[in-house]
Amino acid sequence: MTNTQADRVKEVARLAGRPSRLRRREFLAEGPQAVREALRLHLERREAGREGVVVGAYATAEALDRHPDIAALLDAGAAPVLRQATPEVLAAMSSTVTPQGFVAVCRFVDVPLEDVLAAAPRLVAVLVEVRDPGNAGTIIRAADSAGADAVILTGASVDPYNPKTVRSTVGSLFHLPLVLGIELDGLIERLKGGGMSVLAADGYGAVNLDDLQDARAARLVGTGPGRSAPEGEDPAAATPDPRAADVVPGTDGSIRLEEPSAWLFGNEAQGLPPEITEAADARVAVPVYGHAESLNVGTAATVCLYASARAQRVTRPGPSAAPPSPHDGGPSDR
Amino acid sequence: MTNTQADRVKEVARLAGRPSRLRRREFLAEGPQAVREALRLHLERREAGREGVVVGAYATAEALDRHPDIAALLDAGAAPVLRQATPEVLAAMSSTVTPQGFVAVCRFVDVPLEDVLAAAPRLVAVLVEVRDPGNAGTIIRAADSAGADAVILTGASVDPYNPKTVRSTVGSLFHLPLVLGIELDGLIERLKGGGMSVLAADGYGAVNLDDLQDARAARLVGTGPGRSAPEGEDPAAATPDPRAADVVPGTDGSIRLEEPSAWLFGNEAQGLPPEITEAADARVAVPVYGHAESLNVGTAATVCLYASARAQRVTRPGPSAAPPSPHDGGPSDR
Repeated sequence: MTNTQADRVKEVARLAGRPSRLRRREFLAEGPQAVREALRLHLERREAGREGVVVGAYATAEALDRHPDIAALLDAGAAPVLRQATPEVLAAMSSTVTPQGFVAVCRFVDVPLEDVLAAAPRLVAVLVEVRDPGNAGTIIRAADSAGADAVILTGASVDPYNPKTVRSTVGSLFHLPLVLGIELDGLIERLKGGGMSVLAADGYGAVNLDDLQDARAARLVGTGPGRSAPEGEDPAAATPDPRAADVVPGTDGSIRLEEPSAWLFGNEAQGLPPEITEAADARVAVPVYGHAESLNVGTAATVCLYASARAQRVTRPGPSAAPPSPHDGGPSDR
Repeated sequence: MTNTQADRVKEVARLAGRPSRLRRREFLAEGPQAVREALRLHLERREAGREGVVVGAYATAEALDRHPDIAALLDAGAAPVLRQATPEVLAAMSSTVTPQGFVAVCRFVDVPLEDVLAAAPRLVAVLVEVRDPGNAGTIIRAADSAGADAVILTGASVDPYNPKTVRSTVGSLFHLPLVLGIELDGLIERLKGGGMSVLAADGYGAVNLDDLQDARAARLVGTGPGRSAPEGEDPAAATPDPRAADVVPGTDGSIRLEEPSAWLFGNEAQGLPPEITEAADARVAVPVYGHAESLNVGTAATVCLYASARAQRVTRPGPSAAPPSPHDGGPSDR
């Protein structure tokens, strides 16, 4: 493809706008990382006999040379349509200045809330009217890193299919189930019905995240509130310690980070609505040790989700077996 | 002030550009949060008999009405010059679409590295050629939240006085010492000379942050590598456990999160240069539990700095005394 004025180029470019996305139920993945993850998910689904994700892929010859792993995915039939295009065509399709040689048109990947709840999730992030595309992307990526089972966005949250959010998830959008457009009304009850404690991240919350982490650590070594279940024993059968209520101020002792949890993160300006924090099982504050007045919602979400991930994964004192993985700037980013 | 074409307005607006900032050694704080923190630091310094920070403050009448606390700071003499200005003048001065009625011209606040090292810092964040203004701002704010003693930016890092970074620190720029323009050459030795372990945040690092946290937790309850010093006893006098080397893979047992530490965070695309990671005491990876290929540098920095902050502050198993504090969207943001 060389004609930047072709109808197809215009159609793809129009997916940067919400009306076109909603009409076609498709969105743009741009750049090698997002396109690679889209293609992997596509292949995985096709192998499972399900509908694929990628509708069409566009790449420059130079980008295919530079990323042989993506070329191999494409050769494996991971895109029903692959079209080589000039850098000018790619630029005309893309919402970014430098799409780095890859654009894919993808089907919406969100799933119904019922599907997520039916899978007995252990860790879920809920974005309650989060409006900034970058914040939403950061939280989706952090949730993926922390091994969350799903990310839920309420109705008035930013559209995660907008190119800026897709870009800032760096492929994580294709890694974990996404639930969109959920009504606030009844949300907490549905999450509780899914077997999760509902934790509202709230800087003014009475429960300190550090205390929840300390209580978890103390349970692990048998010195703190509640005895942790020995390996192989049903955790529900563990005897709760009667001192628990005294030990984590602000809780009735029922909040345990190692149990299945849904974390709620609020709007950048207004925080969480009162009817939501009141219905939650606890309002949990990330401690601020310094002089900062508040935490950025992405920073707070990172600390909360990693605290839960650690609590849910570490089952004994001593080193864990979790493998380290690359941060930004590792060889895979080069 | 009503004339958007006045020389003073143009002079202030020019501070959005680096040449003007460097020539005058001044920068812009915009919006109520940044201006409030600038004024507080100014007053604090003046009360200590030192040179102030704020050179001039500009506000609309409406904004002064809306933020009586800032008006009170100004009344207390926190700005040598306060000029009421129309919203149009504020908009002409500002780099943002909505400066929300407040702009302050501030003197550079960075300090020499020697001053930071002389104060026996316990937790320092070092940005090694971090280029994105938003990432730098997020890390400065997270470092402030985690109670870090300073943030150091190496020579080729983004200029933290650029308006986008100032904005994303939400006032944290005025809360902790900032060191700028440090050469990579000799940096690690200088940090070690300041009594700190130097930890390179590196997704491919051999040391897992979880293991360091677990080892710290185990030391606290006396079951793990190294006995922690009882309160009042010199921590250096604690007996290291000979199993330490076996217990935290990838370390020789000398890396302890509770000891003074400098964390190094690298460039978004290239990560940390090899000569830096090799000279560090350890290359530490934040575990990725899910499918994300890498962590955003701001997310990795948040997890690392909070892990150190917790390790340095919690001195016994059981709930800590750290006060919870507001996240984004708490009442103070309204």
